[in-house]
Amino acid sequence: MDTLRIIEVKQSIFADNNAEADRIRAKLKAEKTFLLNLMAGPGAGKTTTLMRTIELLKDRLRIGVMEADIDSAVDAEKVQTTGVKTIQLHTGGMCHLDAGMTEQGLMELGTKELDLAVLENVGNLVCPAEFDTGAVKNVAILSVPEGDDKPLKYPLMFEVCHALLINKIDVLPYFDFDMEKVVEYAHMRNPNLAIFPICAKTGEGMESWAAWLENEVAAWNA
Amino acid sequence: MDTLRIIEVKQSIFADNNAEADRIRAKLKAEKTFLLNLMAGPGAGKTTTLMRTIELLKDRLRIGVMEADIDSAVDAEKVQTTGVKTIQLHTGGMCHLDAGMTEQGLMELGTKELDLAVLENVGNLVCPAEFDTGAVKNVAILSVPEGDDKPLKYPLMFEVCHALLINKIDVLPYFDFDMEKVVEYAHMRNPNLAIFPICAKTGEGMESWAAWLENEVAAWNA
Repeated sequence: MDTLRIIEVKQSIFADNNAEADRIRAKLKAEKTFLLNLMAGPGAGKTTTLMRTIELLKDRLRIGVMEADIDSAVDAEKVQTTGVKTIQLHTGGMCHLDAGMTEQGLMELGTKELDLAVLENVGNLVCPAEFDTGAVKNVAILSVPEGDDKPLKYPLMFEVCHALLINKIDVLPYFDFDMEKVVEYAHMRNPNLAIFPICAKTGEGMESWAAWLENEVAAWNA
Repeated sequence: MDTLRIIEVKQSIFADNNAEADRIRAKLKAEKTFLLNLMAGPGAGKTTTLMRTIELLKDRLRIGVMEADIDSAVDAEKVQTTGVKTIQLHTGGMCHLDAGMTEQGLMELGTKELDLAVLENVGNLVCPAEFDTGAVKNVAILSVPEGDDKPLKYPLMFEVCHALLINKIDVLPYFDFDMEKVVEYAHMRNPNLAIFPICAKTGEGMESWAAWLENEVAAWNA
């Protein structure tokens, strides 16, 4: 296995983040590479979900992963065991990635030979939602233990996402979590949100989500 | 019950947040009011923990609560049922509270008749740790479903806190969470951190934490 690379990404110098994000998307489109921005609060299961997703898709798609964290390389070390190209991004204390920081990661990762690049954003339901990273699609994970009221409290995250994974459904019996309510609240924020209840640990529900993602990648890379 | 007040707090005009925080603390000291800044990621159980804590202490301390969220008043409505004075702060999209924003809340809450004012910060393990709110003590909650690796990934939160509550220990059997490891990682960040395993839902472990808090309040207000 390759030595894990840890990249210190610097806050962007671009005044207009949205224009920079559009530029990244245009470049990815030309290269036929799909960029997924995966967001969630701390401990919602981003890494486990990503590893399961890679297992389901790695025989059909060339995948690369950027793991963003303030510190440590624990997530990148885990993802690297799937065999896909993985780098760790350190944000120097920053609570999110912007387009310029994402581009630094993409350049280190190398996208030309990839069908799907995944950015696992910093664990945070607030700030990452405010910055377009250049991703083709944004996906959020909300886990059952976090509670069904989160779309009420963190509106922007649910507004900017294209799909929502509701993770850890294996522990539904142990938590007061109303699946109908969370779907209702999330659709209040964003009526077009595709919602997938999953358990990344057991694999339950993962096929539907992986099929959605594969379909999006195929449409973009066509 | 009083009508719930919702206050829109504005980003601080003070250039030097630390000086402003010191000014708030001096004022609180003169008034014999202790300010607790309660922080955690989304869904770690801040509100439930706070309600249990109020139950244990409200006969001995005059308590007031500021619930900070980007949107909604669901937490303040819950806390209000305990009978203590509660207001909801809306941050206008901001991911944290600074000293100036906290002071706006304290003025609305009114601290002269309070022994203990609690700020429930925005659910976020990153940004709130960067801003001194003027609190006498910072306390973080980490819940079992979030995982034992969080002190590795969010170092500053664990460095700036005086106590750490490890919540939802009732679901330990259903998660891969190593209590010894999390204590080790947290103490790597901050050797002086007081750590209390609790279950806010069942009340387990809450007495030790409430005793710690009552002791800190007494020392400050002496």
